[in-house]
Amino acid sequence: MFKEILQEIVTQTPGSVGAVLMGYDGIAIEQYINEGDNVDLQLVAIEYSNVVKEIRKTAEILGTGELQEVSVKTGRYFVIIHALTPDYFVALTLIREGNFGKGRYLLMRDAPQLREALA
Amino acid sequence: MFKEILQEIVTQTPGSVGAVLMGYDGIAIEQYINEGDNVDLQLVAIEYSNVVKEIRKTAEILGTGELQEVSVKTGRYFVIIHALTPDYFVALTLIREGNFGKGRYLLMRDAPQLREALA
Repeated sequence: MFKEILQEIVTQTPGSVGAVLMGYDGIAIEQYINEGDNVDLQLVAIEYSNVVKEIRKTAEILGTGELQEVSVKTGRYFVIIHALTPDYFVALTLIREGNFGKGRYLLMRDAPQLREALA
Repeated sequence: MFKEILQEIVTQTPGSVGAVLMGYDGIAIEQYINEGDNVDLQLVAIEYSNVVKEIRKTAEILGTGELQEVSVKTGRYFVIIHALTPDYFVALTLIREGNFGKGRYLLMRDAPQLREALA
């Protein structure tokens, strides 16, 4: 059922490459990648899980409240990371021309469903 | 002149707390904070400069192109980080009810001006 939710997010977001449901330990639970895209989403997610851990620590130090979302824009991609539980997050990767706002919205919309499935 | 640009970004973004022009070494060049806000923006910026360094390294490892923008949403704040040069970035902090899109847009709009002033 994780796959169906990830698939919906990916197929409904124009320009999306794929989505991964992932633990902060860097281990993926499930992923959905658009056909034809040969991005190593697992590698992307592992690398970003370290970043997200760092940001969580920072938010804690600063007392700025729990981490909810991180987005990163690089020369080639957008990565949107949405925190789900203390152990898991979901990451959506888009091409630069992709619909960033729609991706953010869908992650937010489907987060409760993912949380429920994780429980 | 840094101050004027930062002030314009802050005053034109509804719900913004302040903006800092900062080195990746964690040393601030200039900042503008809305009156009445007693957030330690320097501390925020120092902590996030570590995060941004980490993300830069990640983008390099993944070959996903140069880091351009990072945004972080926590329980209390939005922080939008816009990369300027290999040494400097600008960070805008907003309250959760602030206009995130407008802040992102203004950072993008004024980045060339800040880059020019840094040169």
